[in-house]
Amino acid sequence: MKSEISALERFYAVIPAGGVGSRLWPLSRASAPKFLHDLTGSGQTLLQDTWDRLQPISAGRTMVVTGNVHAHAVEQQLPELDDANIILEPSPRDSTAAIALAAAVLMRREPEVIIGSFAADHVILDTDQFLATVKEAVSVAASGKIVTIGLRPTEPSVGFGYIQKGDPLDYPNACEVLKFVEKPNIKLARQYVESGDYFWNAGMFIAPAKLLLEVLQRTEPELHAAIDKIAQAWDTPSREAVLKANWPKLKRIAIDYSIAEPAAEQGLVAVVPAEFEWHDVGDFASIAELQSQGRKGNLAVLGSARVLSDSSSGILISDTDRLVALIGLEDVIVVDTPDALLITTKEHAQKVKSLVDVLKQSGHSELL
Amino acid sequence: MKSEISALERFYAVIPAGGVGSRLWPLSRASAPKFLHDLTGSGQTLLQDTWDRLQPISAGRTMVVTGNVHAHAVEQQLPELDDANIILEPSPRDSTAAIALAAAVLMRREPEVIIGSFAADHVILDTDQFLATVKEAVSVAASGKIVTIGLRPTEPSVGFGYIQKGDPLDYPNACEVLKFVEKPNIKLARQYVESGDYFWNAGMFIAPAKLLLEVLQRTEPELHAAIDKIAQAWDTPSREAVLKANWPKLKRIAIDYSIAEPAAEQGLVAVVPAEFEWHDVGDFASIAELQSQGRKGNLAVLGSARVLSDSSSGILISDTDRLVALIGLEDVIVVDTPDALLITTKEHAQKVKSLVDVLKQSGHSELL
Repeated sequence: MKSEISALERFYAVIPAGGVGSRLWPLSRASAPKFLHDLTGSGQTLLQDTWDRLQPISAGRTMVVTGNVHAHAVEQQLPELDDANIILEPSPRDSTAAIALAAAVLMRREPEVIIGSFAADHVILDTDQFLATVKEAVSVAASGKIVTIGLRPTEPSVGFGYIQKGDPLDYPNACEVLKFVEKPNIKLARQYVESGDYFWNAGMFIAPAKLLLEVLQRTEPELHAAIDKIAQAWDTPSREAVLKANWPKLKRIAIDYSIAEPAAEQGLVAVVPAEFEWHDVGDFASIAELQSQGRKGNLAVLGSARVLSDSSSGILISDTDRLVALIGLEDVIVVDTPDALLITTKEHAQKVKSLVDVLKQSGHSELL
Repeated sequence: MKSEISALERFYAVIPAGGVGSRLWPLSRASAPKFLHDLTGSGQTLLQDTWDRLQPISAGRTMVVTGNVHAHAVEQQLPELDDANIILEPSPRDSTAAIALAAAVLMRREPEVIIGSFAADHVILDTDQFLATVKEAVSVAASGKIVTIGLRPTEPSVGFGYIQKGDPLDYPNACEVLKFVEKPNIKLARQYVESGDYFWNAGMFIAPAKLLLEVLQRTEPELHAAIDKIAQAWDTPSREAVLKANWPKLKRIAIDYSIAEPAAEQGLVAVVPAEFEWHDVGDFASIAELQSQGRKGNLAVLGSARVLSDSSSGILISDTDRLVALIGLEDVIVVDTPDALLITTKEHAQKVKSLVDVLKQSGHSELL
């Protein structure tokens, strides 16, 4: 086992910044997705928060993978991001393509690199605990494992995949992973949570780039070959040509299926339990929850709106300077943007996605 | 008793168009009050509806009394309104000043004129019945009475003053008026409604201008003298000077106190019961009620908004071209204007007024 210091020196953070976040429409749009917004009231966007959180262990060693269309916004929000550390995807090709290309590019630069992938749109409030968890994960990864960070379930959610832990490893908190399981039904979810053997899978993976790519080579040889071809050309003048020729054909597959699950079957995956508070702010109800932090009956306000509220609770997110007056509304969700207004309640927050589907079908693409 | 025909030939309609309608903020503003909006979905504003309703009996004989600031809007909305038939008030001085000045100006032109005063912001759905009622009122007025139109109470409302009827007169429906009573408490309101002897007072008065002014001369001689002075100058080059000198000093008093109640005590007032449906659309709940017309669980939409609604009921009034998406809201009231957004429920519609008071106090005069 290599020492923690030398393992940490090999560490490179990768931030996949993608995903529109349909359930956050009309705030989150194709042109301005979730991670480009301040959804916590921190004064920074989720992407900036993610970047800052990683800096203590990845200063100068953080790569962002995002869509071509977001290049300008990402560069503006992250002035410290070096050109060499941004991968611009010509089009979305799911998480395997994004993370494997980052791994392959970095491995060509540093064969022993250990990458850690952290989505740009998660909310983590305790940075110290987060970093402690990641450091342990990096140590475990250095021993030749793909390490995931497991979230302790706070409820039998059917919105997450789960990670079943096995025997403890020779680290403070790490365990083997027996398997990854898909989003369960509520009955299974309850069993998982009661057993104490399951974590939520938030898709945070820390592993030697080499190991990730070896697994991918076995499970998806064609995809691996294409990624490898692009990575080989990446730091050369032929990058654009090779990217253009190969990217559109890449198989769309989530890293859970292409790497995590098959690797777990081979006993290659470990889990470090997260000792930090984590939120995916997947819908407006969870943003409201995060803002209220237990304070019942309050109205949380994000954005620059002037607000007049008479006995209303819930959340107002405003992207305009209009005055918003609310009277007698309970658990309301109001999202006020220049061209679209959403009003619903916490209870119905999940239905925003189907509304966006209706918008797509009815040809309101200018609002998506 | 003069014949109905000759009485009708003496008739002149007066439309006092004033009153901001605080409970309809942010749609109704000081600069664009209630009567300048389409609140029924008729495709016309309340003022235009009022004008059209009266035309069969007052074509070319309709006078509008409104604030100086609304001159342009009123002229735009009523292209048939002759300059000689508009009275522009330098500032609001309550209903006596408005109606008495119209009466005095018209009486100088036609000494035998019978005026009928009909607020610009009422909703009356059955024009034929309305006209039949007004015609009877005009006949009664020609016999030397101040005639009010009494609304049959549909509930024991505490929001209206009441009219107590006396003996029937020698007309199909008209009765004497014993007295006008102020807005009652709920117990009194129930007694009034159960007795069958009371009508709601909606402030519709039909009377010979001469009689109205004689009563005013007795009850408010100073006010009468000032009004008379203005009326004398009205159709002369000195109108502006005399108006400027006298208007600001006019006593603010409602016509109910200055004319209707004292006249009733003298046995000068009659009532004709209204056989038509009447709404005062005083708040958004009553607009929603009017729009839904018994259809429960529907969302009514007024204005040009593009709307996406998933199982929501209530009313959306839009003054913008934004997309408005509503999910799972019951009896909601949404009023979307370029600089202010109101969201509440039917239950809380009355509270809009106090919110406007808060706006006044907090110096948001640009939004009032």
